[in-house]
Amino acid sequence: MFKSFRGLPDLPYAVAPREQAKYQSAILELAQELIKRPSITPSDGGCTELLLSRLESIGFVTEYLNKNEVTNLWAKRGDSGDKHPSLVFSGHTDVVPPGQNAKWETEPFMPTIKDGYIYGRGASDMKGSLAAMIVAVESFVKKYPQHKGAIGFMLTSDEEGEAIDGTQHIVQSLQARHEVVDYAIVGEPTTDKQLGDSIRIGRRGSINGTITIQGKQGHVGYPEQLSNPIHNASKLIHKLATKRWDMPSRYFPSTSFQLVKVHSESGAMNVTPAALEMVFNFRYSPRNSFDKIKSYVEKKAHKYGLEAKFAWEHEASPYLTRRGRLRKTVQKVIQQETQIKTKLTTGGGISDGRYIKQLAKQVIELGPCNKTIHQANERVSISELNRLCHLYFRLLEELLIKNNS
Amino acid sequence: MFKSFRGLPDLPYAVAPREQAKYQSAILELAQELIKRPSITPSDGGCTELLLSRLESIGFVTEYLNKNEVTNLWAKRGDSGDKHPSLVFSGHTDVVPPGQNAKWETEPFMPTIKDGYIYGRGASDMKGSLAAMIVAVESFVKKYPQHKGAIGFMLTSDEEGEAIDGTQHIVQSLQARHEVVDYAIVGEPTTDKQLGDSIRIGRRGSINGTITIQGKQGHVGYPEQLSNPIHNASKLIHKLATKRWDMPSRYFPSTSFQLVKVHSESGAMNVTPAALEMVFNFRYSPRNSFDKIKSYVEKKAHKYGLEAKFAWEHEASPYLTRRGRLRKTVQKVIQQETQIKTKLTTGGGISDGRYIKQLAKQVIELGPCNKTIHQANERVSISELNRLCHLYFRLLEELLIKNNS
Ligand SMILES: [Zn+2]
Ligand SMILES: [Zn+2]
Repeated sequence: MFKSFRGLPDLPYAVAPREQAKYQSAILELAQELIKRPSITPSDGGCTELLLSRLESIGFVTEYLNKNEVTNLWAKRGDSGDKHPSLVFSGHTDVVPPGQNAKWETEPFMPTIKDGYIYGRGASDMKGSLAAMIVAVESFVKKYPQHKGAIGFMLTSDEEGEAIDGTQHIVQSLQARHEVVDYAIVGEPTTDKQLGDSIRIGRRGSINGTITIQGKQGHVGYPEQLSNPIHNASKLIHKLATKRWDMPSRYFPSTSFQLVKVHSESGAMNVTPAALEMVFNFRYSPRNSFDKIKSYVEKKAHKYGLEAKFAWEHEASPYLTRRGRLRKTVQKVIQQETQIKTKLTTGGGISDGRYIKQLAKQVIELGPCNKTIHQANERVSISELNRLCHLYFRLLEELLIKNNS
Repeated sequence: MFKSFRGLPDLPYAVAPREQAKYQSAILELAQELIKRPSITPSDGGCTELLLSRLESIGFVTEYLNKNEVTNLWAKRGDSGDKHPSLVFSGHTDVVPPGQNAKWETEPFMPTIKDGYIYGRGASDMKGSLAAMIVAVESFVKKYPQHKGAIGFMLTSDEEGEAIDGTQHIVQSLQARHEVVDYAIVGEPTTDKQLGDSIRIGRRGSINGTITIQGKQGHVGYPEQLSNPIHNASKLIHKLATKRWDMPSRYFPSTSFQLVKVHSESGAMNVTPAALEMVFNFRYSPRNSFDKIKSYVEKKAHKYGLEAKFAWEHEASPYLTRRGRLRKTVQKVIQQETQIKTKLTTGGGISDGRYIKQLAKQVIELGPCNKTIHQANERVSISELNRLCHLYFRLLEELLIKNNS
């Protein structure tokens, strides 16, 4: 049923071949159990409870860190210390709404297996990863019941929404009690084509902004008596749209500016509008900053003589995990197990990595293919999940066992 | 009750002083009768029938030239010839909707006299002028029952709306039967502050346009995979907004371009829009043309590499009445009767003058103050209407009587 994985077994090679089918079906089963629970953000749909019981039964100490409507879980097994690091898995149980049902060939919350894929909302973002993480840890604990160091799980139901009461809240709670986290692995789908071909070692920052430009409404027949806000704004828009914000760096492309809305309308063919609204987003590299960008835009608007009002939201700071043991180990394990040289990237949207990086010394994101995320007919390859579970298992071995051997 | 008019009587001076009150009340009464009829474009509200009966009773031959929902009237008295010109009055019975009633201090269709003004929708645009024209002609016919030449009236109920089935249709009908019109006086409110301080000897042309610019929608996190239609359009918008289209000429300001709408929106903060729509108007001088403007805009869009669709409407051609007997006579009469040197202008919106100019050799527009047109609490000064009636009367004398003396 499953394609073989470059000659290697689909599951932790440490497991006896006759055990493999058991683990494979465990991943498949758990992924389906999670997809069945319609956890539209910020609801967890009961996913957390299921994961909690699995973790408790292999010796994790669990603790809800809920906030407002958000279900957060912190789970830990073992103790870390100077010689024994702590490795935390991070993931979200919530999913984006299914969108137009008509576009789905299956029921979004009825996991369906077809052609080697599990179909369903959240299959790749990121209930598949959660299933792979849990089974990897179960398999690891079975093989190394006396492992040193600590394994942690940070789970939230608020990643796809506001992302304010979720991982940010867990991180703040753990910081308050001086919890130490050395390494964090986030299960976001990072794969481009082949499992492991691309991991995230950081993300760009994100800024949302709105500028309202005031004009003076008037009749087109009397242009000298009016001030057209569209005309007035056009110089600024053209400037921002064509400006080179900074140079690309090794891991970050240049900061990018995108208008997502511009609106100005009088409602009549012979009357000019009173005001123009423009809404935009910046994805910015660590070479830039919220303050620099905000100040540049406001100064330009002022210089162009615009009567402008600004609203800013600093949605996310950028983060970057520099060369270190986690990054090197992930590169090595992927190379060994898949014969692929992984690409270290910072592309795509924002993720909870920015919060975790404030607690964990090193953070990387590694997950399945992201081609169908947030779309109709979201799916994940079953074989890919088995291999992902194997990678997570191998990372546990490398970071918690090989360390001390 | 009325302010005196620089020592001159308020009504045709040829009328005996004891007759003045009668004529003044005739204007006031007729203006009120017209305002009472709620003739929201393209309805005439019964105004035409009232004016027709007044004209028939002083010997006009009348004829409806209705088209679709529009009530048009052509009325004529006398015959023109080589030595005896024809002078036509043009006006519209329709008005724009009253708008928000709350802003009115009076009922829009209940003419109210207050502080020397008649308040009501259409008072200044242009039922006041219609009343002044009718009483001027009545007074003229009474004094010169055997006048040579012809007097005409072109009335329509479709000036404020589409203006397709109105004066344009009357003009085409008259052209088809080779009707000759030497002079036309349009009753549009042209006065700035003091009656007669400004007349229109032409109007700019008008072009409406819509450009739809196609982009490729995408996630702001992947700027290399999208094409932002707002960014793409910004160069064209800035270019059109800052371009000098032509130089002003003696009677025309430069061609002016005004965007009345720009809209582009994805509906999400992290997704760029698929397309942008911009809607604009040109007011153009006779130094430019529809074809030149259209071709310039389309070529620029092409040059900037835009995937653009265009929709054009050539709303109005410009017109200009050059120096000639009508213009000179209007200037002279205003100078004599008001001691004001009138300004020859082409400003403001479009008017039916553009159609009439295709039939009449010379067209001027002369009417009351335009400060309150299309607004709440539209009003016209009663004294101004009396003096306007007097100016129309004097023009009839100058053009039909003095001509042949
Ligand atoms: Zn995700
Ligand atoms: Zn008018």
